[in-house]
Amino acid sequence: MKLSHVAVDGSISMVDVSGKPAAERRARAQAIVRMNVAARTALREATLVKGDAFVTAQIAGIMAAKQTANLIPLTHPLPLSSVEVGFEWQADEALRIETSARTNAQTGVEMEAMTAAAVAALTIYDMTKALDRSIVIESLRLLEKTKEAGV
Amino acid sequence: MKLSHVAVDGSISMVDVSGKPAAERRARAQAIVRMNVAARTALREATLVKGDAFVTAQIAGIMAAKQTANLIPLTHPLPLSSVEVGFEWQADEALRIETSARTNAQTGVEMEAMTAAAVAALTIYDMTKALDRSIVIESLRLLEKTKEAGV
Amino acid sequence: MKLSHVAVDGSISMVDVSGKPAAERRARAQAIVRMNVAARTALREATLVKGDAFVTAQIAGIMAAKQTANLIPLTHPLPLSSVEVGFEWQADEALRIETSARTNAQTGVEMEAMTAAAVAALTIYDMTKALDRSIVIESLRLLEKTKEAGV
Amino acid sequence: MKLSHVAVDGSISMVDVSGKPAAERRARAQAIVRMNVAARTALREATLVKGDAFVTAQIAGIMAAKQTANLIPLTHPLPLSSVEVGFEWQADEALRIETSARTNAQTGVEMEAMTAAAVAALTIYDMTKALDRSIVIESLRLLEKTKEAGV
Amino acid sequence: MKLSHVAVDGSISMVDVSGKPAAERRARAQAIVRMNVAARTALREATLVKGDAFVTAQIAGIMAAKQTANLIPLTHPLPLSSVEVGFEWQADEALRIETSARTNAQTGVEMEAMTAAAVAALTIYDMTKALDRSIVIESLRLLEKTKEAGV
Amino acid sequence: MKLSHVAVDGSISMVDVSGKPAAERRARAQAIVRMNVAARTALREATLVKGDAFVTAQIAGIMAAKQTANLIPLTHPLPLSSVEVGFEWQADEALRIETSARTNAQTGVEMEAMTAAAVAALTIYDMTKALDRSIVIESLRLLEKTKEAGV
Repeated sequence: MKLSHVAVDGSISMVDVSGKPAAERRARAQAIVRMNVAARTALREATLVKGDAFVTAQIAGIMAAKQTANLIPLTHPLPLSSVEVGFEWQADEALRIETSARTNAQTGVEMEAMTAAAVAALTIYDMTKALDRSIVIESLRLLEKTKEAGV
Repeated sequence: MKLSHVAVDGSISMVDVSGKPAAERRARAQAIVRMNVAARTALREATLVKGDAFVTAQIAGIMAAKQTANLIPLTHPLPLSSVEVGFEWQADEALRIETSARTNAQTGVEMEAMTAAAVAALTIYDMTKALDRSIVIESLRLLEKTKEAGV
Repeated sequence: MKLSHVAVDGSISMVDVSGKPAAERRARAQAIVRMNVAARTALREATLVKGDAFVTAQIAGIMAAKQTANLIPLTHPLPLSSVEVGFEWQADEALRIETSARTNAQTGVEMEAMTAAAVAALTIYDMTKALDRSIVIESLRLLEKTKEAGV
Repeated sequence: MKLSHVAVDGSISMVDVSGKPAAERRARAQAIVRMNVAARTALREATLVKGDAFVTAQIAGIMAAKQTANLIPLTHPLPLSSVEVGFEWQADEALRIETSARTNAQTGVEMEAMTAAAVAALTIYDMTKALDRSIVIESLRLLEKTKEAGV
Repeated sequence: MKLSHVAVDGSISMVDVSGKPAAERRARAQAIVRMNVAARTALREATLVKGDAFVTAQIAGIMAAKQTANLIPLTHPLPLSSVEVGFEWQADEALRIETSARTNAQTGVEMEAMTAAAVAALTIYDMTKALDRSIVIESLRLLEKTKEAGV
Repeated sequence: MKLSHVAVDGSISMVDVSGKPAAERRARAQAIVRMNVAARTALREATLVKGDAFVTAQIAGIMAAKQTANLIPLTHPLPLSSVEVGFEWQADEALRIETSARTNAQTGVEMEAMTAAAVAALTIYDMTKALDRSIVIESLRLLEKTKEAGV
């Protein structure tokens, strides 16, 4: 599978953030995991063979946020002051994962929040895939991004 | 955001694969990145400030596949013999990423293919987000999983 | 703090295991965490601010086992087929952590089991330290090491 | 091995340190390695097959301190300004490892000092285990934690 | 191969930078890759089986710069604000790689620039080695190091 | 700095080694570090502030070999059975570093031997750079690569 695009001539680079002021920055992201009733029931009743998927996914998401600069090539290493991963069942029975990340730095934390959401969703997938091979991760996106100067 | 579920009593574990025979195993996965026309044009005409997003995303996906066991808590480290990441524009203008992974091991490589797809999609997001803050990653899922014994 | 010893002349090396046959290998290790009644009660009643310490420590131990070759300089990377981390309260009120690791490889997994026990214990310490600054990790040691040829 | 505790409902989180002022912070920790006379003699006379265990353990401890945020799930990444690992033989012939870590950050470095001590001790264990399978790591604990504001 | 030197008595340490003021720091480094005409032609005409070696080497160099503190034992973790990797063909037909790194920190970024150059060169080597087994990486060295106080 | 080359159209890939038989494979590589008399004397007399550079460089090289698949994008993860790093002073007073790596796998270990040599050389550089800012790493290259079938 190869697509047609104008190729770029050797010019990959990190954006230089050295001239930007540090600010208190936050981002929130989400992912939605759609699965069958067997997988949902096992999650709700906690009967999965591998154990508690929610806590495992929270930890995986938090640890992945700390690895963002080693996963997404052009991101900057950031001193994260907080990462959160939460869950809720939607009205349509899909599981919604919401993450937030916070830093005081020269650039934002949206990739950290997105990476946490992606890896938490992949972990839910990993722990329930024996029950449903057609699980789909959807709507992985940024919810909000804020910056407060002068902190 | 906290959800109601029966909590599990300290019983997280990796599945023990020591009794399973090694086999030639493959998996294919995908992710779809939906973005606005400005982002699509920049990708197609390769005018992104950060450089060639396709090659960067391929490399990020391949390297992430090799990190799967360090990202998804209960996965087994596997000797990957191949990882591929490809792209195509869909009829509806969304970018489809397709990955494949291959190993000869006691357990499958679907998490490696899924992780490659997720991180390749996050990298496309990272490189185009300056042009479109509402990019959504959709339909991250397994396409196929195969096993050939006796190899 | 500097101790007196005969210094070694530049001769650090990994043991070459290329001549050894692969075998089914297991190891079990433990660590004991001694803490005050406030910390024990918070663990038992799950009232810790940071969340469920047992599951967090299990995951930390399992993930650390997979990182052993990157932490202990002269160890070999191994294809772990299983890692387990369990807990029990001892008669003397200390928390005992027991780990096991399993591989089919040319060298043993005792460092993986030991590393899992150490990091699980450090995680328990991290999650309870706000309640007891004098927590001590004791008796971190190998319990058993086995090898079955011909597997 | 499974213990009885009240399970926690999906609420793992890093403590948010964004409101805390940066301060000059230090911590000191220790671990004690108890081994037989053969292992002690080999350490003292530097006749170990793998090489100089003291320098290897110092480096392993320093490098592990830098990996703390990737090992202990809910810790914050910190810009370490110094890590030290030292050794002394105790009167009772056990080897005492003492570590210190230093940062200017919003949260303390005790987990970095503890992790350095644990991994340095595991490295001593790894390099001497061929001589003594009953080596025990004891008394892994914090010695001191300090904070100086206004630096 | 063992060399004669006065051995050091267990005294490895990171330099303590806690008393140094933060400053805007930059470093530039280079590496030169000398290869045969077949490899040069494949690079220039982009006919390598593995794909675009220049972009791959740029990304590898940038990501390696972010890993410097985990590769070079006594370096300090630094918040990199920029890393760049560029290429030029020299008059003598060797490929010159030039890197730059930038931070605002208490210590310099020369190891980050050097590590980026080394890993970018190794990546070029990896992608062309099928065409020339005698490729040599030469003249890996620092070009410039600057510090601006008061930023 | 941007060079002219025909750009490649999104086709980065790992070579698929799944059809290759496992074999006992070895590689040897080297790097040469050229430095001034002050740096050489400090190495020989072991008066460096940071400690024993030879042992530190050996450990750094061995650990880097184990990280090769995470540094060089298109390499395969390999179960290393041995890594060695040695030193000798050449007649011309430059320090020669020689490495070897060994595996039983479907693909060779030359990148592991090369990476070990590069990182060992960078570590020597890091530990002596306070004495000589013009240190140059030269002649980083493969010395030998062997394969024995039927093991």
